[in-house]
Amino acid sequence: MKKNHKSRKRLSKKIGMPPGSLVYVGVMDANLSQMDKPTVTIMAYDAAGLTEKLLTAHELSTFKLSDYTSTGKKLWLNVHGVHDTALIKQVGDLFHLHPLVLEDILNTHQRPKIDEFEDYVFLETRSFKYDKASMTMDSEQVSFVLGRDYLLTFQERSTGIFEPVRTRMRVAGAHIRDLGIDYLAYALLDSVVDRYFSVLDDVNDASETLEDLLLSRRTNAMLHTIHQLKHVSIELRRAVWPLREVINNLTRNENDFFKPATMPYLRDVYDHAVNFIESLESIRDSLSGMMDIYMASVSQRVNLEVRALTVVAMLFMPATLIAGIFGMNFESMPLLKNADGFWWAISLMATIAFIMIVIFWRRQWLSSKT
Amino acid sequence: MKKNHKSRKRLSKKIGMPPGSLVYVGVMDANLSQMDKPTVTIMAYDAAGLTEKLLTAHELSTFKLSDYTSTGKKLWLNVHGVHDTALIKQVGDLFHLHPLVLEDILNTHQRPKIDEFEDYVFLETRSFKYDKASMTMDSEQVSFVLGRDYLLTFQERSTGIFEPVRTRMRVAGAHIRDLGIDYLAYALLDSVVDRYFSVLDDVNDASETLEDLLLSRRTNAMLHTIHQLKHVSIELRRAVWPLREVINNLTRNENDFFKPATMPYLRDVYDHAVNFIESLESIRDSLSGMMDIYMASVSQRVNLEVRALTVVAMLFMPATLIAGIFGMNFESMPLLKNADGFWWAISLMATIAFIMIVIFWRRQWLSSKT
Amino acid sequence: MKKNHKSRKRLSKKIGMPPGSLVYVGVMDANLSQMDKPTVTIMAYDAAGLTEKLLTAHELSTFKLSDYTSTGKKLWLNVHGVHDTALIKQVGDLFHLHPLVLEDILNTHQRPKIDEFEDYVFLETRSFKYDKASMTMDSEQVSFVLGRDYLLTFQERSTGIFEPVRTRMRVAGAHIRDLGIDYLAYALLDSVVDRYFSVLDDVNDASETLEDLLLSRRTNAMLHTIHQLKHVSIELRRAVWPLREVINNLTRNENDFFKPATMPYLRDVYDHAVNFIESLESIRDSLSGMMDIYMASVSQRVNLEVRALTVVAMLFMPATLIAGIFGMNFESMPLLKNADGFWWAISLMATIAFIMIVIFWRRQWLSSKT
Amino acid sequence: MKKNHKSRKRLSKKIGMPPGSLVYVGVMDANLSQMDKPTVTIMAYDAAGLTEKLLTAHELSTFKLSDYTSTGKKLWLNVHGVHDTALIKQVGDLFHLHPLVLEDILNTHQRPKIDEFEDYVFLETRSFKYDKASMTMDSEQVSFVLGRDYLLTFQERSTGIFEPVRTRMRVAGAHIRDLGIDYLAYALLDSVVDRYFSVLDDVNDASETLEDLLLSRRTNAMLHTIHQLKHVSIELRRAVWPLREVINNLTRNENDFFKPATMPYLRDVYDHAVNFIESLESIRDSLSGMMDIYMASVSQRVNLEVRALTVVAMLFMPATLIAGIFGMNFESMPLLKNADGFWWAISLMATIAFIMIVIFWRRQWLSSKT
Amino acid sequence: MKKNHKSRKRLSKKIGMPPGSLVYVGVMDANLSQMDKPTVTIMAYDAAGLTEKLLTAHELSTFKLSDYTSTGKKLWLNVHGVHDTALIKQVGDLFHLHPLVLEDILNTHQRPKIDEFEDYVFLETRSFKYDKASMTMDSEQVSFVLGRDYLLTFQERSTGIFEPVRTRMRVAGAHIRDLGIDYLAYALLDSVVDRYFSVLDDVNDASETLEDLLLSRRTNAMLHTIHQLKHVSIELRRAVWPLREVINNLTRNENDFFKPATMPYLRDVYDHAVNFIESLESIRDSLSGMMDIYMASVSQRVNLEVRALTVVAMLFMPATLIAGIFGMNFESMPLLKNADGFWWAISLMATIAFIMIVIFWRRQWLSSKT
Repeated sequence: MKKNHKSRKRLSKKIGMPPGSLVYVGVMDANLSQMDKPTVTIMAYDAAGLTEKLLTAHELSTFKLSDYTSTGKKLWLNVHGVHDTALIKQVGDLFHLHPLVLEDILNTHQRPKIDEFEDYVFLETRSFKYDKASMTMDSEQVSFVLGRDYLLTFQERSTGIFEPVRTRMRVAGAHIRDLGIDYLAYALLDSVVDRYFSVLDDVNDASETLEDLLLSRRTNAMLHTIHQLKHVSIELRRAVWPLREVINNLTRNENDFFKPATMPYLRDVYDHAVNFIESLESIRDSLSGMMDIYMASVSQRVNLEVRALTVVAMLFMPATLIAGIFGMNFESMPLLKNADGFWWAISLMATIAFIMIVIFWRRQWLSSKT
Repeated sequence: MKKNHKSRKRLSKKIGMPPGSLVYVGVMDANLSQMDKPTVTIMAYDAAGLTEKLLTAHELSTFKLSDYTSTGKKLWLNVHGVHDTALIKQVGDLFHLHPLVLEDILNTHQRPKIDEFEDYVFLETRSFKYDKASMTMDSEQVSFVLGRDYLLTFQERSTGIFEPVRTRMRVAGAHIRDLGIDYLAYALLDSVVDRYFSVLDDVNDASETLEDLLLSRRTNAMLHTIHQLKHVSIELRRAVWPLREVINNLTRNENDFFKPATMPYLRDVYDHAVNFIESLESIRDSLSGMMDIYMASVSQRVNLEVRALTVVAMLFMPATLIAGIFGMNFESMPLLKNADGFWWAISLMATIAFIMIVIFWRRQWLSSKT
Repeated sequence: MKKNHKSRKRLSKKIGMPPGSLVYVGVMDANLSQMDKPTVTIMAYDAAGLTEKLLTAHELSTFKLSDYTSTGKKLWLNVHGVHDTALIKQVGDLFHLHPLVLEDILNTHQRPKIDEFEDYVFLETRSFKYDKASMTMDSEQVSFVLGRDYLLTFQERSTGIFEPVRTRMRVAGAHIRDLGIDYLAYALLDSVVDRYFSVLDDVNDASETLEDLLLSRRTNAMLHTIHQLKHVSIELRRAVWPLREVINNLTRNENDFFKPATMPYLRDVYDHAVNFIESLESIRDSLSGMMDIYMASVSQRVNLEVRALTVVAMLFMPATLIAGIFGMNFESMPLLKNADGFWWAISLMATIAFIMIVIFWRRQWLSSKT
Repeated sequence: MKKNHKSRKRLSKKIGMPPGSLVYVGVMDANLSQMDKPTVTIMAYDAAGLTEKLLTAHELSTFKLSDYTSTGKKLWLNVHGVHDTALIKQVGDLFHLHPLVLEDILNTHQRPKIDEFEDYVFLETRSFKYDKASMTMDSEQVSFVLGRDYLLTFQERSTGIFEPVRTRMRVAGAHIRDLGIDYLAYALLDSVVDRYFSVLDDVNDASETLEDLLLSRRTNAMLHTIHQLKHVSIELRRAVWPLREVINNLTRNENDFFKPATMPYLRDVYDHAVNFIESLESIRDSLSGMMDIYMASVSQRVNLEVRALTVVAMLFMPATLIAGIFGMNFESMPLLKNADGFWWAISLMATIAFIMIVIFWRRQWLSSKT
Repeated sequence: MKKNHKSRKRLSKKIGMPPGSLVYVGVMDANLSQMDKPTVTIMAYDAAGLTEKLLTAHELSTFKLSDYTSTGKKLWLNVHGVHDTALIKQVGDLFHLHPLVLEDILNTHQRPKIDEFEDYVFLETRSFKYDKASMTMDSEQVSFVLGRDYLLTFQERSTGIFEPVRTRMRVAGAHIRDLGIDYLAYALLDSVVDRYFSVLDDVNDASETLEDLLLSRRTNAMLHTIHQLKHVSIELRRAVWPLREVINNLTRNENDFFKPATMPYLRDVYDHAVNFIESLESIRDSLSGMMDIYMASVSQRVNLEVRALTVVAMLFMPATLIAGIFGMNFESMPLLKNADGFWWAISLMATIAFIMIVIFWRRQWLSSKT
């Protein structure tokens, strides 16, 4: 229930195969592949104009990079649905990508990383989609290949993460079209990182809602929520921590794929990543604190319950004993024949109970606060 | 109740917007904007004199830096209320600030950082205001832009944090007016850091008060207090830890914005920041320790309550049984016809109770200490 | 029961012996040595052909490396069963290995490491086999000695870990036969690391299964499972953490045993190792979280049990007291002679019980949720 | 009670004052200032002789360093009682100390640090006095200013920490008088560090005493002791950790204040500091372990108490029920008219109780060990 | 009982003494000094022969190093019993050791360290002896001074730790006699490190035995054992952690005391030390895990006990109430005159008890597993 079947990722599907074997190592089920038929779209642009096209299988097979870049245009080719191994292989051949790069694109359980080659730089990142109701996250791998005048992006599914950037590019005279292909890579990377903050906000909200409830009520559901949020935060950290290093790497070594003018923007993304990590750590600290409070208040509650039991026992046991004593069948017993004997006994019980209550009240045992 | 609505910061307001978009990402509500109408004040000074002015919209639009600095004066321009995007844009244009710097000034959830540009250095810091009663903190972002002969500061609200420095500057012949604009930047930075210690003192007081109470009483309120203080200390650490690195950065690379004569002062601020962090860590250690003690003493209390219950049960159960036995309706039972039978039974109960008490006393079960 | 006898490894068998003494420090029992009679197999190959042979004792004694490598062939010599000290010594002499290398091969409790010599590089790694039922792991040490044109591998037992690579090599025209001996070393190293992911998947499955059960039930068996999985993850980490450094070492210093063309592949293994470690850390975090949840829900359960007891006591104690009161033997007591007295008493008991239930219901004590 | 009023240090007294303002930020109360009237003592020495003098206000105002050092003598000037701001200012002017150095000397909440200036090096250290009874520590700041041929030391109070060194110096022909002023600085620093070990011994003793008691008894007082010792160890660590770095700094950069011959001695102090820190960490580990044991044994104790209660309930409840049954007033009941009926009932009670005891004994519930 | 008196080490015996004062800071008691009369033995050897001699006081006073080394022999001088200050001083003078080295040899609470001097290198190590029964460790300090052609070793007691090496040396034509004095130093260091593994094995055994018992039983003795083993592992770590750095130091800087040929052997010791530390960390992790399991199973046990109590209460309280009701003395009560009234009442009791048992059985409250 907490984890749907498909999220049980197998990391080891490829054992025994030669390195560089192209096998899709993600989640593959009938419905999904139906929805996300692999598509290849290109956007070729310069300051003057923008060509946007969905490539058919035929067009892809006759595709030549130089058709676009010879006129000084910049080319962005985006692939949805990396489970189509043949398609990825075809694209890889077109752009002369290293077999290991293709393997990494297909193996969707990679950690974010950067690999620099002579003609292109390869970036692996991860995008998240958080479901508030179930407090689970879907993640997809987003791969970037940045060449001198082209950019390839590979997504597992079409989640619309790049849509805002596309919208901006379609505007005539958009600033983004004046700038190099590296700026586009930055803009797309930035939209990946921005998504993280959206997830973070949701996690933060859930965490703060829980915090408000925690001191008044305790349920097993809360325990479940804390655990689930911890889970999500661990996953987020695993994605962003290495990404931080990747971007840091980009900002330091001035490889010639990113131009100096784009550097401040990359540094900005880096700052965002660091900020994200620190916010996440705060949330994690907060969750740990909540766990402690949960534990402490459960113990405190046991304390109160035991005390309630003790108070009840102390109130009734003496009275019950007195009743028992006067219920004994001795022939000669005091008070029994006394006309007010019964009331004396009742008074005795009441007096003892009253004294007990005074003692409890003094020790503050009757309040549910301490 | 613990967190008022406005402190629910959304970190992700800007998703889908181009980088460098100027949007205020802080808290904006009707009352606030009423109180803090954005104001721009300037102080132009040298050893000889000081000009202090509140700039009107008109004056700002005709403002020229060279009017002031051509005469060798140093200029400090302070902006209150960064939610006025247009104003910030206008100031940014006057001083040729990079769009990302303006974005950072407006996005008030930045972590402290330093960005060096050719003509100026940009510092981001955070100032706190602690409310003792609710144990919550308000924070505001304070941005510095230090040029060769000018200093810009941007505050979210007018919290009077810079007032002591202004007072010192107004004194004729003040030492601070002889020194460069970098010394003013230091002095303002120093007043930001000094504020931290004020918050630290309050947190420390609350923590020590709690510590004194902890061994005598335990309430859910204490749990709440510990949690709240931890929260505050996490927030403080998030602000000061990167600030430490920022200042360390300033003290090491001798960029030409800070002069060698100011370096010992910067190192002094650095020492303060380090000292602050270590004090904070001690408080955090102490809070963790208190949580442990709270847990241990709640368990210890459960122990005592259970023991009280056991003692009561052991005292009354045997007596009740004896009473029950002599209350049985057998025709022939011993003692029943004996004139002193009743007193024998009572004596038996008393004897057993006495023996129990002796046993409890020997095992130190009657003391509430162990 | 949890640990079979043989896994009690003695690390100190060699005390008092001179360094370089060749003593097998692994597990040695009758059955095992029966099964794994030490065998030496060689594969000599180049693009054109492949010779595969199981060396007899005689062949080994007349073995000369130059017989194979003089014709440009690459030689892979694999030894199963390192408990045969004499055999290891013989192989060591053939290839002029340093006594300490031989000692390390025989001492099967080494941590993964790399030692570079003039003529060869020595790698120590560890391979695992996880048993799902008992949640225990068997580990064996796999040693590599990579020379200019030969590769030696030493395994404790024949676990078939290298079989997939052999299968690939046997295919005529296999890519792997074109490449250098260093590529073979990489391919074998890669199959060792791939094994880790298989273990990781099993551990992950066990951990997630446990997680699903945890909130509904708690048994001592779960405690045992958590502990066992922690144990396994500690062992895995001890093997992979140093391995990561070993591979990192290989990818950085371009020693001349690994050629530049093999470097991207080594980096790929490095990425896998890092990915493995991070996945492992997540599992460990998750296990710690489960322990906390276990603790919290046990405490929560105590809470519920105590409450049940309190509810029962509060329902029956007043009624029992009333029954006791009317069971007293006073001569004059109210109600006793009243025809409906009995029913008044019963009604009183029922009323009190009803009021109690209403109170409990209001305090939500009757639900087992809170 | 745990913390006397004066130890509530305010770190923020100086807010709003210009940097370099000389204000004493320590504890100032009437009695104290009475006892510790500020005094200035000098010792001028060389191998041949030693002059020791308590400077009057007049002598101080006419003091000239060259009077002493021109004859090749080395001068040690010690100031007790840094709350006399004017005096510190006067000494500072005599030796041309930087305003920030004077500020640091007066602000007695500094962390240990080193500041190097052209003519002198400034060291800040902290000395402790542990009170065994209350398990609290008093600390005082000890500042060193080491010039070419003079040494200044500043203490908050006269705690006799330097007395052993003075005694050694007074001996005619003492080795210490032959050596440079840097050796004296070392000797004094060494006596500060030696004090730490004395405190450590006391803390260690308290910790071990507690450890011996812990498994036999548990009281809230132990909880208090553990907490207090943790407190002390945090404070010690805060003082010694930065001191370690300070000394390490001195041993590495061969500034010309410490001569090569003194280096081995400084390294020795460094080793002591490291040793101290590691011992402290062991004590801290030990205290954490004790906290865990305390928690575990309290829970264990709850277990035993609940079991005792259960045993009592199980022994008496059946018997009470039987007594109740035979106390019912049915007209026709078995056994009642039987002459031995009473004894049958008693036997039944005894038999059940006996069976219960056998069951408990078999489950080892009667032992207080498990 | 846990700690015998003599292990209360005082670290601060030397306060107030000049540095370099030679005072034995170890444990000194009458019996001990009787047993371990200080002895000085020398072994002078080369490939050709070996001279072994116990030096008398007289021989020591006339000892000249050149008598041995002038003939190309290598000299190993070993001192047992460092409490004889005069003897150590005498040896120190013979070999011109720095006063601080002698101080370190006598102060037996040093952490492992290395000090390089012009003519010799000084190594401080620590050897352990673990007592399985009491789970305590005795430690002794072993100091090495390695010169060009001599080696000095200092031990607190004669624990036979070097005996295996001596035995090897006595064999005619032993390899160790061919090699330099640095190889002997390595061999002795190696035997110190080997001892650690012996202790580690014992600790590991104790830990695994405990682990097997933990899930079936819980006693305070286990708590004690866990604590004691933690203690031992902390002590071991304190000794080996700095030793690792010391050896690492030796393997890196090629000082001329260790020859290149000995380097692989030193690296081997280094690997052992690292391996030791990681094994120790695993044991520590395991001990922490056991503590958690202990806590969890104690809580679980409380749970079971409370449930047992609740079950008993629920079974007997209704029956007791029914008995009480029919024991009331009302004149007119139903059933009382009914001939089968008694059996109706008993049946009612039995029915309620039966229903309760069914409910408990369904909720799995009767099993002791959950």
